[in-house]
Amino acid sequence: MGISELPPHYQPVLGQVVTSMLVNGETRNTLPVSDRGLQYGDGLFETIAVREGKTEFWDRHLARLREGCTRLGFDEPDLEELRREMQFLINGQHTREGVDQGILKIIVTRGAGGRGYCVPEAINPTRIVAFHPWPDIPESHTREGVKARRCHLQLGRQSALAGIKHLNRLENVLARTEWDDPEIVEGLLCSEGGYAIEGTMSNLFVERGETLVTPDLSHCGVAGIIRAIVMEEARSQGLSVAVADIRYEDVITAKALFLTNSIIGIWPVRELEGKEFAISSTISTLMKRLKARRRADREK
Amino acid sequence: MGISELPPHYQPVLGQVVTSMLVNGETRNTLPVSDRGLQYGDGLFETIAVREGKTEFWDRHLARLREGCTRLGFDEPDLEELRREMQFLINGQHTREGVDQGILKIIVTRGAGGRGYCVPEAINPTRIVAFHPWPDIPESHTREGVKARRCHLQLGRQSALAGIKHLNRLENVLARTEWDDPEIVEGLLCSEGGYAIEGTMSNLFVERGETLVTPDLSHCGVAGIIRAIVMEEARSQGLSVAVADIRYEDVITAKALFLTNSIIGIWPVRELEGKEFAISSTISTLMKRLKARRRADREK
Repeated sequence: MGISELPPHYQPVLGQVVTSMLVNGETRNTLPVSDRGLQYGDGLFETIAVREGKTEFWDRHLARLREGCTRLGFDEPDLEELRREMQFLINGQHTREGVDQGILKIIVTRGAGGRGYCVPEAINPTRIVAFHPWPDIPESHTREGVKARRCHLQLGRQSALAGIKHLNRLENVLARTEWDDPEIVEGLLCSEGGYAIEGTMSNLFVERGETLVTPDLSHCGVAGIIRAIVMEEARSQGLSVAVADIRYEDVITAKALFLTNSIIGIWPVRELEGKEFAISSTISTLMKRLKARRRADREK
Repeated sequence: MGISELPPHYQPVLGQVVTSMLVNGETRNTLPVSDRGLQYGDGLFETIAVREGKTEFWDRHLARLREGCTRLGFDEPDLEELRREMQFLINGQHTREGVDQGILKIIVTRGAGGRGYCVPEAINPTRIVAFHPWPDIPESHTREGVKARRCHLQLGRQSALAGIKHLNRLENVLARTEWDDPEIVEGLLCSEGGYAIEGTMSNLFVERGETLVTPDLSHCGVAGIIRAIVMEEARSQGLSVAVADIRYEDVITAKALFLTNSIIGIWPVRELEGKEFAISSTISTLMKRLKARRRADREK
């Protein structure tokens, strides 16, 4: 996404402080309690990497956000406003602080109001855009891989919510409370049948023989943007790629494993529940390819 | 709960407007966007009937709220403050507007902050207490029963979250969007195996022969306060009461059905998917007993 003209009502803020959050275009960091995002988790979010002052894979994030609106049955937010608000935050950080990388978190909710679960006829979606600093991630996570564990919590199956990035995230929160060892970087979540689905904040890829497998997310899990890009890149390299049910036993006995999300890119798994894994040549290749894709997307 | 002394810091507000919401004891109706209640639905709620200026079954609501905090693994809010805030809102409504009935909605979240799902070490739960007008419910719903439908959405199984009244309510919201016929008052939700679980906003009781059955909520659903009271009252009447798995086929062929929650009390089901049901003598008895229990609890 490139630099764009900002409408006049954003201008007064620019001269004052660095705005890092806009709620429906206004510089504030609060939301009405009546918003259904709080009351019921009735909304969606996206976490977008910003580097060199540019968003990565915005088109993909936007497509998933729009799909989420359709799936949850609410009106899309004003997408032109949303894009302007994002750009405003990026520009503001850069102009005032010289910051050109960070994370844009977008939250879109169905809006405020309604007595109980029933949705009122007149309701306008809420847009929240926030700019967060780029997190302090050890470079070794990428270079040497990470240590992961298997979580006890099992993901429930709910095809009505699977794939989209909705705000009902108690399963992820509870899974993440299972450990506090800082050496363990991610937890692997399985569904009731013992099928591996994803990490608490990442998608999973498993190398089985000559095939790269990523879990089927028809019943639970979030369909990550980087997951889709990695599948494309793997196929373009002539690799066999499958979206399939994978039992935990097949994960732990795999040739290699890795995790993906929009911020981390690819993290090889170096250790899972005491079992060690190497960084395969496939992983190294995909890391290089992804890096190039991220750069190309920023520059487009 | 009776009238209590209010601490001085509540007093200035009393002379001004009728306060209908307190957030951490302050008169406001907004919440920081960083609150985990919004970010992840990381919290709980209770909906409490207030009549004749008194709460109904506060002890039970409090017990469920505390159980929820334990299950989600976060600190209880300051319960003495919470009780004072509730009483303040009830008193304010009565003093200024002569209103002595309404609904208290309490939301408690894990608090604000944390990067991602990981919970920060220092975090304080958020308390929200809101007073809403008593809803305009047709008296005929109680007297003649209601028309219900079966929802297409199937509840996911998640024992880590079953029973408690947490803020991840997208299933209920989606189920409630399935119909807009105002004649249909409630939707019946089944789990993946075709087992009846609850209504979108109520619990279900089924009369099968001489036994009153309510669905087992070990894997999904909210364990309602009135559900527990009704079971107690039924047993005290010498009725056989069972908590069990009930297939939808057993619901639709039952002798009688009814729904419960803290506001509606008991609603007989008059019609479900075209099948008609009578209001049995058991239902009539339980309605009288519940009315007496609600009164007794207010007066205690």
